Amino acid sequence: MYKKDFLCVQDFSKDELMEIINLSLAIKKAINHGYNPPLMKGKTLGMIFQQSSTRTRVSFETAMEQLGGHAQYLGPGMIQLGGHETIGDTGKVLSQLIDIVMARVIDHKTVVELANACTIPVINAMSDYFHPTQAIADVITMIEHLPAGKKLEDCKVVFAGDGTQVCVSLGLICTKLGMNFVHYGPEKNWVPEEYRKVMEENCKVSGGTCLICDDRDSVRGADFIYTDVWYGLYENETPKDVRVKQFHDYQVNRELMELGNIGCKFLHCLPATRGEDVTDEVADSASSLCWLQAGNRLTAMRGLLVYFTRNREKHSDLEIAAAEEELNNYLTSHGYDLERLHK
Amino acid sequence: MYKKDFLCVQDFSKDELMEIINLSLAIKKAINHGYNPPLMKGKTLGMIFQQSSTRTRVSFETAMEQLGGHAQYLGPGMIQLGGHETIGDTGKVLSQLIDIVMARVIDHKTVVELANACTIPVINAMSDYFHPTQAIADVITMIEHLPAGKKLEDCKVVFAGDGTQVCVSLGLICTKLGMNFVHYGPEKNWVPEEYRKVMEENCKVSGGTCLICDDRDSVRGADFIYTDVWYGLYENETPKDVRVKQFHDYQVNRELMELGNIGCKFLHCLPATRGEDVTDEVADSASSLCWLQAGNRLTAMRGLLVYFTRNREKHSDLEIAAAEEELNNYLTSHGYDLERLHK
Amino acid sequence: MYKKDFLCVQDFSKDELMEIINLSLAIKKAINHGYNPPLMKGKTLGMIFQQSSTRTRVSFETAMEQLGGHAQYLGPGMIQLGGHETIGDTGKVLSQLIDIVMARVIDHKTVVELANACTIPVINAMSDYFHPTQAIADVITMIEHLPAGKKLEDCKVVFAGDGTQVCVSLGLICTKLGMNFVHYGPEKNWVPEEYRKVMEENCKVSGGTCLICDDRDSVRGADFIYTDVWYGLYENETPKDVRVKQFHDYQVNRELMELGNIGCKFLHCLPATRGEDVTDEVADSASSLCWLQAGNRLTAMRGLLVYFTRNREKHSDLEIAAAEEELNNYLTSHGYDLERLHK
Repeated sequence: MYKKDFLCVQDFSKDELMEIINLSLAIKKAINHGYNPPLMKGKTLGMIFQQSSTRTRVSFETAMEQLGGHAQYLGPGMIQLGGHETIGDTGKVLSQLIDIVMARVIDHKTVVELANACTIPVINAMSDYFHPTQAIADVITMIEHLPAGKKLEDCKVVFAGDGTQVCVSLGLICTKLGMNFVHYGPEKNWVPEEYRKVMEENCKVSGGTCLICDDRDSVRGADFIYTDVWYGLYENETPKDVRVKQFHDYQVNRELMELGNIGCKFLHCLPATRGEDVTDEVADSASSLCWLQAGNRLTAMRGLLVYFTRNREKHSDLEIAAAEEELNNYLTSHGYDLERLHK
Repeated sequence: MYKKDFLCVQDFSKDELMEIINLSLAIKKAINHGYNPPLMKGKTLGMIFQQSSTRTRVSFETAMEQLGGHAQYLGPGMIQLGGHETIGDTGKVLSQLIDIVMARVIDHKTVVELANACTIPVINAMSDYFHPTQAIADVITMIEHLPAGKKLEDCKVVFAGDGTQVCVSLGLICTKLGMNFVHYGPEKNWVPEEYRKVMEENCKVSGGTCLICDDRDSVRGADFIYTDVWYGLYENETPKDVRVKQFHDYQVNRELMELGNIGCKFLHCLPATRGEDVTDEVADSASSLCWLQAGNRLTAMRGLLVYFTRNREKHSDLEIAAAEEELNNYLTSHGYDLERLHK
Repeated sequence: MYKKDFLCVQDFSKDELMEIINLSLAIKKAINHGYNPPLMKGKTLGMIFQQSSTRTRVSFETAMEQLGGHAQYLGPGMIQLGGHETIGDTGKVLSQLIDIVMARVIDHKTVVELANACTIPVINAMSDYFHPTQAIADVITMIEHLPAGKKLEDCKVVFAGDGTQVCVSLGLICTKLGMNFVHYGPEKNWVPEEYRKVMEENCKVSGGTCLICDDRDSVRGADFIYTDVWYGLYENETPKDVRVKQFHDYQVNRELMELGNIGCKFLHCLPATRGEDVTDEVADSASSLCWLQAGNRLTAMRGLLVYFTRNREKHSDLEIAAAEEELNNYLTSHGYDLERLHK
């Protein structure tokens, strides 16, 4: 059976990414009008977390529930991942027991290894390199808040501060989709050279633009200003005094927002460190989309789950009815009380 | 949209409390006769726990399932509550992703802060000050075991021992409902003065009575004798020798039970420390309601969940059917196989 | 109401064990043909884990979901089991709140104590003595891969290495079912004497055979060669150098497999310690059934869940319809909007 993983947005064409996004929007519209489509009925998602998580965890679990399926939380220490068992062996076993798996991992190679071993689809729910489910939610939020008269390809997105995995995934998806992407940050914390090159290659195909610099003028004309925390990876956080010294010029505050276009919107993957990466004034302003953006994690998860399981095994009505009859015959002839069991 | 939180029983009128209780009893009756009403269908409860919990956890999760919804367990360290993210920001985010939230917290101000930030209802699943879901379960249990010929308002409830958050919530609900409440315990561990005053005010309105004392005669005529553990808050437990010295006169044993009315019943929020707050003889006697009372945590949770989400958004059949048709058209025209996806 | 626990395969007759196995196979067939039978609809399983677990956890949770029910994960430290509350009291409380419970415990006496206290069925999901759900999955896997022309009773099963709880449960079920069981391992790590005696008694009834020895010739003619890890119990793991010295003659490698019959199959309860208890060559070979065997944990759990709850309370259609009507009348007459609540 067909299986494809979602490890990085770069593995997908513009058309494929737009299909995931449009599917997510179509499902959102249905649910907002009271129709919860049973698109994951009877399906189970395994959620492997090597770190704590609010948005990713809750949005995946709610998404499965709303679509008629179920999500299992496999948190730190709960299963034997890379402890008594190789990641490859765990992947083989999970493929027998569930339908799709997501993993938030400390090292990207863990999710790659898992995907290689699994015969079911694997979704990268954030690694040290990429955060592709966030990138889908980001574009969805921008589409829902396009400046008047602009198409997605007309928009300028400025990411200010540390070139985190969120920044990398945003840069990759913006350049894939033909948007204008700027990473405005200190040279030491720019998006790694290898990804900058990929973004530039993307632009050649898509017609987008890509600029990575520490020039404050690069913020001018932004339609969206985005930031992330300054402390880096959870496993090795930069102390407060060091990071504030390093990034304070790149804080998203009133002054920075005013460099953007009139009506420029604020985005943040969250959690925010208020007073560091963003001021309260901006985060809580009418220009702030970050709460709706968190809500669109749910929008994105629903689309991703359906998209990556869409080629599941098919059974005809006839086959299913025959299976039901055969099981009920077995149960009845072996003394089980169907009326008791089915209620 | 309307939202109200359940942080303390004191925030509700007698009529409102009785409505929650009667709704809980109506749902219990239906389920006991084989009908699981889909009153939380498609809804998700977030369960935030800062401590371990048996009754609260299991009863909330079972309640959601029986009513057609789903509960997510967000245990200690699983989400970023007050760590990388302010409680307020977590509340704003959760409001985008789930339908209702419960929190068992170490400090009461945490659940207040969460409730202030959330646009969805928040249920206090025990704080250092209050345990309101327990109080609902307690009254339900007493209603189911009223002494012959008595109404709720005729009953005398004696809480023996430490004036814990369970004792406070019990005193508040009994005095709200017009019952006769006694806290019989050592002066140092009486219900705090501020709550005693509130209980007295409640009595003026309800016609109930309230007595807080260390006089053993106050137990006479009890219809229900209730106790809780002696070790105080989990974060700062009183050593065994200290607490036994402090409370041993207030143990619920055969002698204390005999001070109550003929047929006097025993209640305990559990866990019990057998041999301390209650003897095996009492806990395991025919007068002990504590196991049924634990079962009524489930009864209470079902009523509370439905009551606090009853003003949810409404969609007409027409709107839902149109949403379904539009989504199915999208899926079909984009190459998804509906038959494959809906089974 | 009837309740029976599943603590050890030895407590069940050959007919009962075969009924559990056949029920599991019948449900598997239905699900593989697209029919998920709602045999656990509205039911809740409590999953108590005192250790981390992959296969047991995931297979139980998926099983409940596929059968229309729900599983609650009660992991280490999440509930008060034997901490503030006796195991007996926790059992009494859980019996009020859920429908069936499974427990993976460090000491077998914990699951026995729990079963004694519970009025709902308790399934042993592995203790230091037994692993009965594994044994059911093992026999299912062997039935699905019987050598041509052989019945189950004709098969020879060799367990190589440490006489773990998996080995004990396998020996018990094989001898119950009339199969030919060999434990080939170092004398110090043989199946305990008391269980060997039970297996010999089983053989007298079933016609099976049982051999426990360190003679390599005992492997000859095996239809299935099975092994488990060498490090013993998680709480007290044998260091690598010690265990390798102890067990290296009993590794399942090409040479050992070649002592078996042509077409001899490899089984392992997993996790495997590759390079110790089994070589990569064997684990990843066409003769290896260990991944399908892991998948059959799910097969077994579904059967066990249905089997042990089959005598649940029964409600007639009439009773259920009356309960529905009464609740809806209550809701409507108390101002609840049924249309809002049921969608």
